Amino acid sequence: MSHIRSRFSKPPEEMVIHYTSSLPFDYRLYPEDIQGSIAHARMLAKQGIISKKEAREIENGLLAIKTELDEGRFEYKTELEDIHMAIESRLFELTGDVAGKLHTGRSRNDQIALDLRMFMKERIAETSRAITNLQAALVKKAEENIEVIMPGCTHLQHAQPVLFAHHMLAYFEMLERDRERANDCLKRTDVMPLGSGALAGTGFNIDREYVAQTLGFGKLSNNSLDAVCDRDFVIEFNALGSIIMMHLSRLAEEIIIWSTPEYSFIELDEAYSTGSSIMPQKKNPDVAELARGKTGRVYGHLIAALTTMKALPLSYNRDLQEDKEGLFDCIDTLLMSLNVFAGMVETMKVNRERMALAATLNYTLATDIADYLVNKGLSFREAHRITGKLVNYAAGNNKQLEDLSLDEYLNFSDCFEEGVLNINASSSVEARDLPGGTATKQVTRALEKARAVLKNNLG
Amino acid sequence: MSHIRSRFSKPPEEMVIHYTSSLPFDYRLYPEDIQGSIAHARMLAKQGIISKKEAREIENGLLAIKTELDEGRFEYKTELEDIHMAIESRLFELTGDVAGKLHTGRSRNDQIALDLRMFMKERIAETSRAITNLQAALVKKAEENIEVIMPGCTHLQHAQPVLFAHHMLAYFEMLERDRERANDCLKRTDVMPLGSGALAGTGFNIDREYVAQTLGFGKLSNNSLDAVCDRDFVIEFNALGSIIMMHLSRLAEEIIIWSTPEYSFIELDEAYSTGSSIMPQKKNPDVAELARGKTGRVYGHLIAALTTMKALPLSYNRDLQEDKEGLFDCIDTLLMSLNVFAGMVETMKVNRERMALAATLNYTLATDIADYLVNKGLSFREAHRITGKLVNYAAGNNKQLEDLSLDEYLNFSDCFEEGVLNINASSSVEARDLPGGTATKQVTRALEKARAVLKNNLG
Amino acid sequence: MSHIRSRFSKPPEEMVIHYTSSLPFDYRLYPEDIQGSIAHARMLAKQGIISKKEAREIENGLLAIKTELDEGRFEYKTELEDIHMAIESRLFELTGDVAGKLHTGRSRNDQIALDLRMFMKERIAETSRAITNLQAALVKKAEENIEVIMPGCTHLQHAQPVLFAHHMLAYFEMLERDRERANDCLKRTDVMPLGSGALAGTGFNIDREYVAQTLGFGKLSNNSLDAVCDRDFVIEFNALGSIIMMHLSRLAEEIIIWSTPEYSFIELDEAYSTGSSIMPQKKNPDVAELARGKTGRVYGHLIAALTTMKALPLSYNRDLQEDKEGLFDCIDTLLMSLNVFAGMVETMKVNRERMALAATLNYTLATDIADYLVNKGLSFREAHRITGKLVNYAAGNNKQLEDLSLDEYLNFSDCFEEGVLNINASSSVEARDLPGGTATKQVTRALEKARAVLKNNLG
Amino acid sequence: MSHIRSRFSKPPEEMVIHYTSSLPFDYRLYPEDIQGSIAHARMLAKQGIISKKEAREIENGLLAIKTELDEGRFEYKTELEDIHMAIESRLFELTGDVAGKLHTGRSRNDQIALDLRMFMKERIAETSRAITNLQAALVKKAEENIEVIMPGCTHLQHAQPVLFAHHMLAYFEMLERDRERANDCLKRTDVMPLGSGALAGTGFNIDREYVAQTLGFGKLSNNSLDAVCDRDFVIEFNALGSIIMMHLSRLAEEIIIWSTPEYSFIELDEAYSTGSSIMPQKKNPDVAELARGKTGRVYGHLIAALTTMKALPLSYNRDLQEDKEGLFDCIDTLLMSLNVFAGMVETMKVNRERMALAATLNYTLATDIADYLVNKGLSFREAHRITGKLVNYAAGNNKQLEDLSLDEYLNFSDCFEEGVLNINASSSVEARDLPGGTATKQVTRALEKARAVLKNNLG
Repeated sequence: MSHIRSRFSKPPEEMVIHYTSSLPFDYRLYPEDIQGSIAHARMLAKQGIISKKEAREIENGLLAIKTELDEGRFEYKTELEDIHMAIESRLFELTGDVAGKLHTGRSRNDQIALDLRMFMKERIAETSRAITNLQAALVKKAEENIEVIMPGCTHLQHAQPVLFAHHMLAYFEMLERDRERANDCLKRTDVMPLGSGALAGTGFNIDREYVAQTLGFGKLSNNSLDAVCDRDFVIEFNALGSIIMMHLSRLAEEIIIWSTPEYSFIELDEAYSTGSSIMPQKKNPDVAELARGKTGRVYGHLIAALTTMKALPLSYNRDLQEDKEGLFDCIDTLLMSLNVFAGMVETMKVNRERMALAATLNYTLATDIADYLVNKGLSFREAHRITGKLVNYAAGNNKQLEDLSLDEYLNFSDCFEEGVLNINASSSVEARDLPGGTATKQVTRALEKARAVLKNNLG
Repeated sequence: MSHIRSRFSKPPEEMVIHYTSSLPFDYRLYPEDIQGSIAHARMLAKQGIISKKEAREIENGLLAIKTELDEGRFEYKTELEDIHMAIESRLFELTGDVAGKLHTGRSRNDQIALDLRMFMKERIAETSRAITNLQAALVKKAEENIEVIMPGCTHLQHAQPVLFAHHMLAYFEMLERDRERANDCLKRTDVMPLGSGALAGTGFNIDREYVAQTLGFGKLSNNSLDAVCDRDFVIEFNALGSIIMMHLSRLAEEIIIWSTPEYSFIELDEAYSTGSSIMPQKKNPDVAELARGKTGRVYGHLIAALTTMKALPLSYNRDLQEDKEGLFDCIDTLLMSLNVFAGMVETMKVNRERMALAATLNYTLATDIADYLVNKGLSFREAHRITGKLVNYAAGNNKQLEDLSLDEYLNFSDCFEEGVLNINASSSVEARDLPGGTATKQVTRALEKARAVLKNNLG
Repeated sequence: MSHIRSRFSKPPEEMVIHYTSSLPFDYRLYPEDIQGSIAHARMLAKQGIISKKEAREIENGLLAIKTELDEGRFEYKTELEDIHMAIESRLFELTGDVAGKLHTGRSRNDQIALDLRMFMKERIAETSRAITNLQAALVKKAEENIEVIMPGCTHLQHAQPVLFAHHMLAYFEMLERDRERANDCLKRTDVMPLGSGALAGTGFNIDREYVAQTLGFGKLSNNSLDAVCDRDFVIEFNALGSIIMMHLSRLAEEIIIWSTPEYSFIELDEAYSTGSSIMPQKKNPDVAELARGKTGRVYGHLIAALTTMKALPLSYNRDLQEDKEGLFDCIDTLLMSLNVFAGMVETMKVNRERMALAATLNYTLATDIADYLVNKGLSFREAHRITGKLVNYAAGNNKQLEDLSLDEYLNFSDCFEEGVLNINASSSVEARDLPGGTATKQVTRALEKARAVLKNNLG
Repeated sequence: MSHIRSRFSKPPEEMVIHYTSSLPFDYRLYPEDIQGSIAHARMLAKQGIISKKEAREIENGLLAIKTELDEGRFEYKTELEDIHMAIESRLFELTGDVAGKLHTGRSRNDQIALDLRMFMKERIAETSRAITNLQAALVKKAEENIEVIMPGCTHLQHAQPVLFAHHMLAYFEMLERDRERANDCLKRTDVMPLGSGALAGTGFNIDREYVAQTLGFGKLSNNSLDAVCDRDFVIEFNALGSIIMMHLSRLAEEIIIWSTPEYSFIELDEAYSTGSSIMPQKKNPDVAELARGKTGRVYGHLIAALTTMKALPLSYNRDLQEDKEGLFDCIDTLLMSLNVFAGMVETMKVNRERMALAATLNYTLATDIADYLVNKGLSFREAHRITGKLVNYAAGNNKQLEDLSLDEYLNFSDCFEEGVLNINASSSVEARDLPGGTATKQVTRALEKARAVLKNNLG
């Protein structure tokens, strides 16, 4: 600590240390910090800025520290304000003065940016894998139930019969967009900032390309002032995380509703349910509820990061330290939620009979009746009008559309013929035989495409 | 755990336990949980629902557990999903079957609500005290510098001279509103929910009034369905916390700007500054920057809580478990920020000369010149027009208004007389002698009122 | 415009005028602006700062402008940047140079603050009335259906039978807290800022108390720097609006779920439903869905206001102009949503039979069975365990608890006697006979209290 | 209206119409709605679903309506709930029953999705152009001032001298990322949803590829349930808009600070400033302040869209109607802000002398001194320590580092030689000669690259 307060004659207040320390959360960056420092030391040696021997001593010291950290033997000193200082301070203890050479041509500002970008590159990849995982569970559940018909809803009102598999694949699509967004975010994360110094670059003859290659980065940052205070990739990840959680919250909501006694469309596995302390009969979809609730937390981290960055003058300001905790929690929440959902979806029992029964209740075939009339030559709007009267008649007589006789149909239009009596849930589903539609042929094709995507993503 | 999964034949998945457990954060509620349980047990005994002996055994068990917790000897078992189950489970170990009687007429749903409300009542009071603390530092700094004049700004442009003390008191006012909001929030937190059961009330003949009195609550909740899922007080606290942080971010911004070499209006104490790893000359206002940055975090918690509560059907849903982490972090952030600011304000050095010098630069006396002309009979708009020309003339000749001769004034209006030459920073400040104005008399009076408020709040 | 650019030689860019103008939205403040200006003019005359004749001319001019505005004859000139300049400019046209005297001792900064506070005081009162309105509809619906029993839910799973009226009153309680919050917000809005000038107060001998009394304000602002940039009341209103919308979103969610064919607990009136363009059978709860969706909009306005205020240095900054649009939309959304909900609740049809049928499905009487055992001397946890087994047995045999014989009960515990067969939905409800509980006696009492509150609030 | 309430016997309440109507804002989609309908009609004719003559009548009718709308002659009927119904209703008036055939194989749900996607594709392109515009202004300003040196800051404290052009290019980089994000968002917007029907696809033999090609879409949507309720592209645009505004708020903040009398680094053109009603000397950076303030509004729209989508069950729900107003305002705010900034940057005057003077004040050359010592063989940390003492000494003697003699230097280390006296702002800047650094050579190269990017983007 002392060496960065060179000019000061007074230590910080105890509560100031506590307030400003990031060690309680940025310790998670230690593997990246050490890996980055080793790459930097090697480059310094390659460039002749330090000797090969010095580089070796530094590297050995850092590896020893890594072992201490991996094994939980590292002693965190609360007066060291962050993981970077903690490691450097320990390096001094282990290697003596040579440790002081590691910081040549580097500042904590570009070092922090480097560590966080390395960390995020790995986490984005992990998020992609977890997305693929959940997609695989959805595809599997869809395939297992390829023949199950359920009521498709708008406004949570029965609208038209659809395949349950088609419904599952809707979530597959959402998650596929999420994966694409993760890849896009990765492009802007995969930028090597070291060499930006505190803000202006460095006067030492360092080799940025070498460091980038060593650490597997695809690009160099273009502007030192920008590089030390760019946290767009943090916000972007929080934003894509928010959209992922939004998608999960939709699936959660449906799982919760489908699990009610009124619906009973699915039954969750006991391993993904919890009981009640006072009501022994309860089997609660807590996992889905928690995920729905955790949507708030991730939205919150997004707004936090945006708020923190608002109106900050260039370049580095201490406000930026606030980037990490929300981001880390966002990642943890995402990974856990995606994984838990994969298990929940995979183990849930689909109640085919209940879904099938509901599929044609509430006049979901009305559109098919109207389409039938259009095919007989009526305009869509006229067909719609007639069908509306039919539904009113049926509802008034407590009948479903399948219960009506041809005579009853003919009371509403001369266009009806025998064929109208063949309209049912299955005919309705199979009629929608166009790309993106719910016909079995289309859904089967969509499942094949999904399998190919999964294979590619897991590949 | 087993007893709340009575109907289940299967344990939850490992990752589900991890996902659903609140023990890692709700352990903080243990003092309230134990205090609340003791009150409940006593009431059960008073009502004859359990025996006095049973109540005593339960109370002794709970007190023993509290000691274990206080002394860090309590063993947290990760398979217990929350602090309530952890304590109950330990109570079974310590007291045997009698522990099973504690839950009579109570559910975890109303128990959690009780614990959180007890916790919040204390934290709101603490927040109030921390506000008062910072107010006291502002008042002290104002009093010490009662004669210091600085440029009052709009649009960060010099507008009119004001007393530095007047500026400090503006923050006093903001914080005073914050304190009022905290009190208002307290009214809605001070409501005793026990007796609401899981959602419908309880069938046991319990005495809610007795529990409320024992625990120092002012009111009973009116509706059991509402009581188990009302988290308005959480949101309300996050909202008032957001406003407090907004106020602190404004003060932080000014402290940061005033500390620049260009301004040099203040100098922060070294105990509230930090240095740079690469630039030894730096003395950075990190504390102010961090507080400004932490504004985002608290806004985030507010939006998280609002999002979580959106569209939840009655009554308790597991989503509600998400209420705590953000709230706890909000409280911690508030208390630490308020306390650190009190120290930072108290120790900062005011650079009177720099402020005085700046006070009349940039034509801040123009309004006084215009007012002078109005007092000579011109309409305000006409006076404004003439003064505009005067400023243009002065600026064009690299002069300040105080540098102009009477002859120069007379070139712009016949209304000017000798008196105009007496207009200066001090006359400008003292002219604003009305309630809320910056004249020394008014500010002195405001300081007296502030002292009285402080005395009352600390009393 | 010219007079406020006195020093400038160049007009603003066309797109700058467009960018900076607030006239497209702040025109709504014209009644307050004119009322405030009249009070100011009268005060100036009372104090001898302008003549009585001048005050009369100004007042007559302002009243003429008000008529033009009321009747839609006022010509808005886009080059005038706000409603205050638009009215002042018109006053010059109507009354000539005397118009220039109105601005004596006043700045746009305190004028805007005044207008917005006057506007908000009225709107807060309107919001309170709209809340009371919806509360009245809930109470009416509860009273009409006082004997209706429904399944009370946690986790959207049936938990225990409750009175539908009890459920309605849960929303009454939420709204009552909202009303209290509105009152608290009003206290901090009812503060008269005029006399703060641009930032420092004014040098004219004005009478702030007189203006406050004329305009019906309860308090004077205490600090001029604070008064011109305090927008806490805007944020606070947005925050309470967010909580109100959160409450409405919960009711909306329940109405949407209850309207599904699976639930059929209620039927919305056609006047509060919409149809589908393609599916004639649909009767969609669009009003409830829109209200649920509009929750987002109001949350957004809250975060917008908080973000705008973050880190603003004192005192007035142009950022503050952003306070209005979101606030106006928040108010409009709240008032419309509350009013539309009152109509929707009042006209919705309650399907008592469906609710009653569902009330005891899914073993909602399990808690009563457990309580029965506790009353026979078992510990709560033991009783819970036995009941869990009972429920498992019943579920395994496709029976409800009411279907079980005493013999079957006795297989699980010797404690059961004839009385257990009398446990039903009604006994369950009536057992919860404590303040806040769902027993008819308690709910009737709660309705009486609610009626008294309504009478008081409407009074 | 009547035709979509086929089954209803009752009109909606007046206030319900008002509450549910989107016409007041979705009228903006009319060009896309008409273009989309024409493409749909042509496809229906091509497929033989309607006759060529019918398609022609429909197309002519739609074109006539477009002319009415373009010329402001279209009569909006408030009882028509959206622009789609308004146009269809007018089509019935103009063409009679054939209008009823347009809706064949299409639903409002996929129609709305289509219109919004077409609208957004154009707006994203416009946003890209506006970004490029502002980038061009930054590059131009940088080139004009290529030799200007200013103090680079961290923590708003002077850190090291940098080129003003380097600083401008930092914003170029931020905006370039914004442009990339816009392109990424475009990929996910450029998806043709028509053919998804209300939710399940359509039973008519339509040709989705044909429609996509006609309207210039790159991809078909893959799943009908997803396609009618996917609003990811709306959220994604709001998110990228939020990041853009965050970047502008940073530039705004710097412009505001640089315009203060204390800094005087720049002078804004009068066309981009405003005056004060009471203080004639003021020249306020209102444009920058408003943009900074408008950051809040865009953040708000993001959180609004996320909140609205949270936990919505599939597929279309009326909540989705809330997607538009915030999005439209986001676009308008972005375009206006970007354009106004381009003008503001282009016309602002850079005060080179002030910047140059400030560049070496406050010991900004300390890092160079430390680097000097490292080059003489000291470790970085040791060099840092010595320089800290030097700065302390200089500060204590009211000297800048350039004022020190070699003798004074030698008091702190034997390593100093004559060369240390040549360290100045210019040598400091030029020393940082690595990719991304502030040396003139590097910045010139960066400007060339920027020019190439601009040319490519404008191309």
